[in-house]
Amino acid sequence: MRIVLDAMGSDAMPVPDVEGAIEAARVFTEDTIILVGDEQRVKAELGKHQTTGLKLEVVHASEIITMEDKPGLVGKAKPNSSMHVGLNLVKDGSADAFVTAGNTGAAHAISTLFTLHRIPGVKRPALSAIIRLRGSEVVIVDAGANADAKPDWLAQFALMGSIYAKNALKLTNPRVAVLSNGEEEGKGTEQTRAAAELIAQMPLNFIGNAEPKDMLKGHVDVVVADGFVGNILIKSMEAATSTMAGALRDELMAGVFTKIGALLARPAFDRVRKQIDPFEVGGAPLLGVNGVVIIGHGRSNAKAIKNAIGQARSAVSGRVIESIKMGLQSAPIK
Amino acid sequence: MRIVLDAMGSDAMPVPDVEGAIEAARVFTEDTIILVGDEQRVKAELGKHQTTGLKLEVVHASEIITMEDKPGLVGKAKPNSSMHVGLNLVKDGSADAFVTAGNTGAAHAISTLFTLHRIPGVKRPALSAIIRLRGSEVVIVDAGANADAKPDWLAQFALMGSIYAKNALKLTNPRVAVLSNGEEEGKGTEQTRAAAELIAQMPLNFIGNAEPKDMLKGHVDVVVADGFVGNILIKSMEAATSTMAGALRDELMAGVFTKIGALLARPAFDRVRKQIDPFEVGGAPLLGVNGVVIIGHGRSNAKAIKNAIGQARSAVSGRVIESIKMGLQSAPIK
Repeated sequence: MRIVLDAMGSDAMPVPDVEGAIEAARVFTEDTIILVGDEQRVKAELGKHQTTGLKLEVVHASEIITMEDKPGLVGKAKPNSSMHVGLNLVKDGSADAFVTAGNTGAAHAISTLFTLHRIPGVKRPALSAIIRLRGSEVVIVDAGANADAKPDWLAQFALMGSIYAKNALKLTNPRVAVLSNGEEEGKGTEQTRAAAELIAQMPLNFIGNAEPKDMLKGHVDVVVADGFVGNILIKSMEAATSTMAGALRDELMAGVFTKIGALLARPAFDRVRKQIDPFEVGGAPLLGVNGVVIIGHGRSNAKAIKNAIGQARSAVSGRVIESIKMGLQSAPIK
Repeated sequence: MRIVLDAMGSDAMPVPDVEGAIEAARVFTEDTIILVGDEQRVKAELGKHQTTGLKLEVVHASEIITMEDKPGLVGKAKPNSSMHVGLNLVKDGSADAFVTAGNTGAAHAISTLFTLHRIPGVKRPALSAIIRLRGSEVVIVDAGANADAKPDWLAQFALMGSIYAKNALKLTNPRVAVLSNGEEEGKGTEQTRAAAELIAQMPLNFIGNAEPKDMLKGHVDVVVADGFVGNILIKSMEAATSTMAGALRDELMAGVFTKIGALLARPAFDRVRKQIDPFEVGGAPLLGVNGVVIIGHGRSNAKAIKNAIGQARSAVSGRVIESIKMGLQSAPIK
């Protein structure tokens, strides 16, 4: 397998990107990682590590997309960006998947409009994130690609999310729900109620509405929302847990006894931290484009990059793209 | 001041309701608390406490609204409910405010359509909750009354939320923002962008878009959203903090040393718990109806009820209704 990594993606690029690629090459020894980016900077970074025998290649790209670049303009404005060059390697068959920790909107626009394009029949590609908290793993789709979304788009998100849950969470029959402000049937918005009606007719294990607490209690595997609400959901949970962790740290350090207590309790804190660490997951696939694209957080560290590459591998070997093509045929939405 | 409490509101009614009323009567000694509900049950509950000298009255209401009652039907179906009777006491001037921990939709419908009605010029009343986490206090409006909302409704929510923040958070010039999936101007949905344009023209301290993390970092005082998104926001934060607290408890109890550590660190945990306790706030006012209405959580305990009564007192003494009337005149929205 050949996986492209955007070496100029993360906020601290190319440092965590290159390090993550090296870690991945050490673990996934049969695969080749292709680092796309400023050749000089990438090779300089590679030179700081012991890489003998690792299957790493470098492909030059002269332009870099920043978080400030406008997604709607960057495809034309920077045709030689590491995203553009990297996605074209997947398009022309030179590679099997693309991974980036860069600008989500730009990756969305360049893959959809300039390089891979959509799978035929897909209305809108959607970002499909995995939320992990205390052992529960839930796919949330759309996690942020389409702020305004129509009910029939949401129905396709449900289908694609279910296929991804089978692949990434190893579930045979994922429970699919529409995110709502209450479990009762009448709850939600006009959009979510119309989406629920469509999803109920699809060959999916649809369980109705789900509230945020249902996700963390393990009652549901795939939660469907538009990209605005899905993004607010994820960001609210992240903000709440990190604020609570900060409050705990401050209060524990405020007294001598609580400090000693914290020291003794350290292994428990470490286990909880691991349970809420977003970097354990890696990234989120952009489902619906005609090729495997994984988008990681800008704050990604090397572990997150390595895990995102691992996600790309699973999506390729699990034939997620082919499954979406077949799923669309069995559940066409007009 | 005379404050009506729906004695049949909370999930465990009338126990926490009556106890909360007694606690309030002990603290707010100049005010009268009017308990509305099944006279026999309320008096039986009162009889379990020492209430001599407390200003408590009981008004009978023969019907009880449950969480299963449909908000759209209950106003006609149960005209003698404790909500209906209690809200009429405010409407006819026999009392100054109404507090309930009951069915939010029912309280919304009965106050808006059957009893108090809207303040002239108000498009839709909105629920205005206060989120507290690690010292930050933020008003979120709408917290759940209007799942589908138009941009001009959101603009009025901004105005009403700002007035409430002055009253409840004692701020002179609250910073108002629209909840969004990014701080940049182009982020959000068609609805939030249109709302932001309207709010920018109002005499408010509008600071643009805010993400969930901005709320917890103290960057904003009033966050505006439709009732669906606002509700998901609050529920996501609650679910995340309670899941994390549960994970922490389990991991701390999993080993001998971590258990000892937890014991020593107990004061720190207690301080954090208090920082995230939703019952410290009490309830949320339904802003825009022509009278003070505070709606608490169904799970309210006595402390939450007492604090909700305290909120009602502040809203009355702070003349929140009059301020909204004046605010609407100075910032009319067509």
